[in-house]
Amino acid sequence: MDVEEFRRLGHQLIDEIAAYRQRLATEPASLPVMSQASPGQVRARFAAEPPQDGGGLAAALPQLDRDILPGITHWNHPSFFAYFPSNTSLASILGDLVCAGLGAQGMSWQTSPAATELEEVVVDWLRQMLGLSPAFAGVVQDTASTATLCALLCARERTSDLAQQGLGLQDPKAARLVVYASEQAHSSVEKAALLAGFGKAHLRLVPTDDAHAMRAEALAAAVAADLAAGLAPCAVVASCGTTATTALDPIAAIAAICQRHDLWLHVDAAMAGSAMILPEARWMWDGVEAADSIVVNPHKWLGIGFDFTLYFVRDPQHLVRVMGTNPSYLHTAQDDVVRNLRDWGIPLGRRFRALKAWMVLLDQGVEGLRGRLRRDLGNAHWLAGEIDRTPGWQRVAPAPLQTVCVRHVPTGVTDEDTLTAHNLGIADRINRSGRAYLTPSKLKGQQMLRLSIGAELTERAHVEELWRLLQDEAASGAAALAAAPDATPAG
Amino acid sequence: MDVEEFRRLGHQLIDEIAAYRQRLATEPASLPVMSQASPGQVRARFAAEPPQDGGGLAAALPQLDRDILPGITHWNHPSFFAYFPSNTSLASILGDLVCAGLGAQGMSWQTSPAATELEEVVVDWLRQMLGLSPAFAGVVQDTASTATLCALLCARERTSDLAQQGLGLQDPKAARLVVYASEQAHSSVEKAALLAGFGKAHLRLVPTDDAHAMRAEALAAAVAADLAAGLAPCAVVASCGTTATTALDPIAAIAAICQRHDLWLHVDAAMAGSAMILPEARWMWDGVEAADSIVVNPHKWLGIGFDFTLYFVRDPQHLVRVMGTNPSYLHTAQDDVVRNLRDWGIPLGRRFRALKAWMVLLDQGVEGLRGRLRRDLGNAHWLAGEIDRTPGWQRVAPAPLQTVCVRHVPTGVTDEDTLTAHNLGIADRINRSGRAYLTPSKLKGQQMLRLSIGAELTERAHVEELWRLLQDEAASGAAALAAAPDATPAG
Repeated sequence: MDVEEFRRLGHQLIDEIAAYRQRLATEPASLPVMSQASPGQVRARFAAEPPQDGGGLAAALPQLDRDILPGITHWNHPSFFAYFPSNTSLASILGDLVCAGLGAQGMSWQTSPAATELEEVVVDWLRQMLGLSPAFAGVVQDTASTATLCALLCARERTSDLAQQGLGLQDPKAARLVVYASEQAHSSVEKAALLAGFGKAHLRLVPTDDAHAMRAEALAAAVAADLAAGLAPCAVVASCGTTATTALDPIAAIAAICQRHDLWLHVDAAMAGSAMILPEARWMWDGVEAADSIVVNPHKWLGIGFDFTLYFVRDPQHLVRVMGTNPSYLHTAQDDVVRNLRDWGIPLGRRFRALKAWMVLLDQGVEGLRGRLRRDLGNAHWLAGEIDRTPGWQRVAPAPLQTVCVRHVPTGVTDEDTLTAHNLGIADRINRSGRAYLTPSKLKGQQMLRLSIGAELTERAHVEELWRLLQDEAASGAAALAAAPDATPAG
Repeated sequence: MDVEEFRRLGHQLIDEIAAYRQRLATEPASLPVMSQASPGQVRARFAAEPPQDGGGLAAALPQLDRDILPGITHWNHPSFFAYFPSNTSLASILGDLVCAGLGAQGMSWQTSPAATELEEVVVDWLRQMLGLSPAFAGVVQDTASTATLCALLCARERTSDLAQQGLGLQDPKAARLVVYASEQAHSSVEKAALLAGFGKAHLRLVPTDDAHAMRAEALAAAVAADLAAGLAPCAVVASCGTTATTALDPIAAIAAICQRHDLWLHVDAAMAGSAMILPEARWMWDGVEAADSIVVNPHKWLGIGFDFTLYFVRDPQHLVRVMGTNPSYLHTAQDDVVRNLRDWGIPLGRRFRALKAWMVLLDQGVEGLRGRLRRDLGNAHWLAGEIDRTPGWQRVAPAPLQTVCVRHVPTGVTDEDTLTAHNLGIADRINRSGRAYLTPSKLKGQQMLRLSIGAELTERAHVEELWRLLQDEAASGAAALAAAPDATPAG
């Protein structure tokens, strides 16, 4: 491909993406939210062997529409209510385009000073937007999973006095380190604890209260029990907005326990963090200034395209001590006066991700983003109210944010297996219809439906339509149950 | 930004990227390879606070040219000879554009079946291109650093019989696990061993031979000594193309030792792996079929833009056992019949990276890529020959690939500090001139210049120009030394 062909195909693809985004905005019903592809369907449309000769790209581009698009679940669709509202806003697409076009590598400052310094600028903008004090220094990582792993590694090394430089976790004489999180913490917390070598036997999943938030007194009791047993409490992960229900662990109370026992406090605000750009929401992470590390995912609700995770730490020197390597071939003349962000995380190489954040912030501004989040919170509040006043529907968790967790209980049905099948059926029929996409999940053993609101294109009308779909499918499921009360309703 | 503004700015940016790439191709001297920015220069061009109001993107775009570009080190420049030839080819830019435009999330199969299935297709294409047998299953990760960490975690869990489900590495009764790599292994190997919790005391950096490759008998001796001491040898990282000199560890001999002692064999072919698309190069990793895991970085030399690391394993079930989580909110109806690639690595979320690889392979084809690599190998061979026949120049390592490691020794100079300063001076003057960019590095205590050839735009003429620059700067440095023989030459 020469530059002229690049220009021609680039214009073509910009137009195709524009048309796709326009279609999501104006004809969303023409695109099923959840891909209707069956396993293997996409793969079968591609050759089993690589092309020997080149020059085939332009001819293959129609495959994007014909073979790829049917295999896409449309995360930017206005009726996307699953997982979390991870959007790539139009400005973010342009940022990724420039990132790829420059093809710069930001592993060290010298390998592209702009990549490091614009990242410093936008990360500090975001810090201010979140209301965090300048005591925190931040960096962009790929995902909250990786950032939480970094946090637990840093905790491990602080408590063990940098044991990685000696026997690591394999010192038979060292006290065994213990990690704490709520039983509602994201799966990545357990994964990080296991990968960091603590072992599942040294992970305490602390019980939660009726609002599904960590019980601070249960944490204190668990720490005391471990101390009494001769173990070494090391780190607590507090969730600010759990994945299942956006429950809010009491960070201030947890921080007090951490302070008392010199535990690392990691605040997992992957989801709720975006809301902290709203001053009226900051009560949700009251106490966060005491954290040692914080993770916030602007790719979850601020339109900065995946992947863009913010990892804030109070002690960047410690982070660099744990993550840093300094081989001769990476030395540069500026090492003493600049940040080499390769030492702020696990990967060595780094893309110029700051560009997309810069473009989104310029395009939407702080007030623009706040307005959108307030719209989404209002929509979630409206839906929660509808559910609360409608017989047969139960809300199974508070909805401080944009996620509403519900289940439908037809009159007279008490058998839990029947209710599970009934609610799974509702989700399955809606998801298969392509008209909306939501996430069925379990909460403390009960089947529920998790409705996450906040895609950029989602307006009140789309939430109203979701509510109609839920009621229709609940009614049809309940009717089937009434007709054949002893049978499991059809999924 | 509405779709019309996106379309307008998108066309504008495509044209600007095309112009930038054209300039690199036809007027490279107008762009200094290494950014000439001083620390803080880029940052100072941006506001310290985020914009309160939106709508400012179009007006800010001139900053790309004015403030960002001077802070870019041009990795796609034809005179880029530093680090490794990490290019984002034109087709790859288009792939990243489509990836961002779709904004799909590939964490699970259901969250966009095309993201998983096209990844399966292109990873298998690349497996075939590398000459690996179907015994290997692959996945795309971000970097070799992350993939090597995955490998050591999987090794740890295999040897310890999945200790992460119990006491982790903190079982005081367990035998202590040991990791082996060559003293020339990439810094990410030590980083991975430390992060995985083994501890530096359990990492053996095995001596190398005159070609800077691991001495297999030294590995065997180290394993035997650890066994005698009651330790538990766990994993060996064999480098296929070390970072400093592209040295080739003897994989077959290492594999035999691994087999004898049931050690995990991880082959770090991050750099050399790309060359394995050439049948005539495959002797370099003879024995690779015995590996448990392999990492290859197509973003290093195949033009697939960063980040695109291939991680191959023989036992994907074990990988999923170590990395997998299965919370209720991630269950999908297809879990039993599809791959959920979130369980094949550390991050949960995943971009649709397969698109850029697909586009590069269609655009260039296997033969196109082979032709380019053969050109680069020929250029490196030519430069090595020039150096070998030119008095005063020493080649400090074999050059089986595209990296030539040299140093200049002026007549009569034997003092190592003087030689270090002299060679650093050569690199520094060339890099600051903006006419070429190379990496000074140490090799077994000796200062050398590492010349990595293989940027897409690099033709013989650019290598000839590099050779002239090197000779000129060597001569001027030598002249300064001769004029003031007791002084350290100016850096």
